[in-house]
Amino acid sequence: MRYGVLGTGEVGRTLAGRLVELGHEVTLGSRTRDNPVAAEWATAAAERARAGAFAQAAAAGEVVINAVGGPVALDALRAAGAEHLDGKVLVDVCNPLAFMAGEARLDPVESDSVGERIQRAFPHARVVKTLNTVNCRVMVDPGRVPGAHNVFVSGDDAEAKEQVTGMLGELGWPAQRVVDLGGIRSARAVEMYLPLWLTMFRNSGSPDFNIEVHWAG
Amino acid sequence: MRYGVLGTGEVGRTLAGRLVELGHEVTLGSRTRDNPVAAEWATAAAERARAGAFAQAAAAGEVVINAVGGPVALDALRAAGAEHLDGKVLVDVCNPLAFMAGEARLDPVESDSVGERIQRAFPHARVVKTLNTVNCRVMVDPGRVPGAHNVFVSGDDAEAKEQVTGMLGELGWPAQRVVDLGGIRSARAVEMYLPLWLTMFRNSGSPDFNIEVHWAG
Repeated sequence: MRYGVLGTGEVGRTLAGRLVELGHEVTLGSRTRDNPVAAEWATAAAERARAGAFAQAAAAGEVVINAVGGPVALDALRAAGAEHLDGKVLVDVCNPLAFMAGEARLDPVESDSVGERIQRAFPHARVVKTLNTVNCRVMVDPGRVPGAHNVFVSGDDAEAKEQVTGMLGELGWPAQRVVDLGGIRSARAVEMYLPLWLTMFRNSGSPDFNIEVHWAG
Repeated sequence: MRYGVLGTGEVGRTLAGRLVELGHEVTLGSRTRDNPVAAEWATAAAERARAGAFAQAAAAGEVVINAVGGPVALDALRAAGAEHLDGKVLVDVCNPLAFMAGEARLDPVESDSVGERIQRAFPHARVVKTLNTVNCRVMVDPGRVPGAHNVFVSGDDAEAKEQVTGMLGELGWPAQRVVDLGGIRSARAVEMYLPLWLTMFRNSGSPDFNIEVHWAG
């Protein structure tokens, strides 16, 4: 599979690196065409790894992953270009984490979500929100946390969610651990989980944790 | 122990009923002195069960439990009277669930929480937020959901949290399954978990579930 990964931060590089290891062709996209972090990553990673601007990465990917921060997600996707997203599965792993007056805050929160904003702005992309409830090291290596912990998917396109569930399987998340929350509106629910994640992270000092949902019967 | 439970809804009656079964003296408090639901509950429950107005329940309790809905919590506690709360452990189990234009919404959300509002309004009460992340049947019978799932406590008073952890133990939550999130500010985190809970509830049709936090190493 050819992936375009938007965002050269830790999340983007970690996802892109693991997808290359898994044998995929990955273009890591950044705001500028000559981003040194992306170029260095592409050089170090493998022949299947390339670096480029957002538009090049999105154009190259059969699947596009949004791994930039929530506050800049729409700008990055506009730079990527609707023509490079239309009809494609667009995996959104970001959180709406903004810093206001030195405090971590969610923007948007509750009445909207980044996942929904992306789907509204790119109505022909098939947006699937997932993986934002875990640290990027856990995203690509769920086995580093013990137990049958879960990951969530939200999206309006059932086939797109199925395809993303396949990708999650390659990353180490068996299908039975993927909880389908419903339409893209449910992105609100997983984005609002962030404060609980952040609180547990601050208290424990480690990002290596995740939740398992237990059901009766 | 003598408990005052404020709120005659399902949450209040369920908690009060279980505490009576466990041998405690419980006064179930309602807005009015002659609430028929509370009176019927007290008649049916046991000798240790009484019904009264909010102020009577709060006065009778060594520990007071706020089990009214988030939007009316402060009103109920004002009716209970600061003089009946000062110095006492005040267990807040409510969620900030409001209905606006037919939609479930949180109020407050993110920049504040019901737990914090209560602590600010009653600075001499020792507020502990807990149990709001599970359905009331699970609150008093965690064994109905399989697995070592967790419950959270938030509060500024360490001794009060210890006392509440003891109460949780009686309800079936061993201390090692009680996650201390820190000060009462962390009530925001557990209150914002509600949308994820509601989404999973709607999708599954059952309130009998809960999350377990898995940590690496």
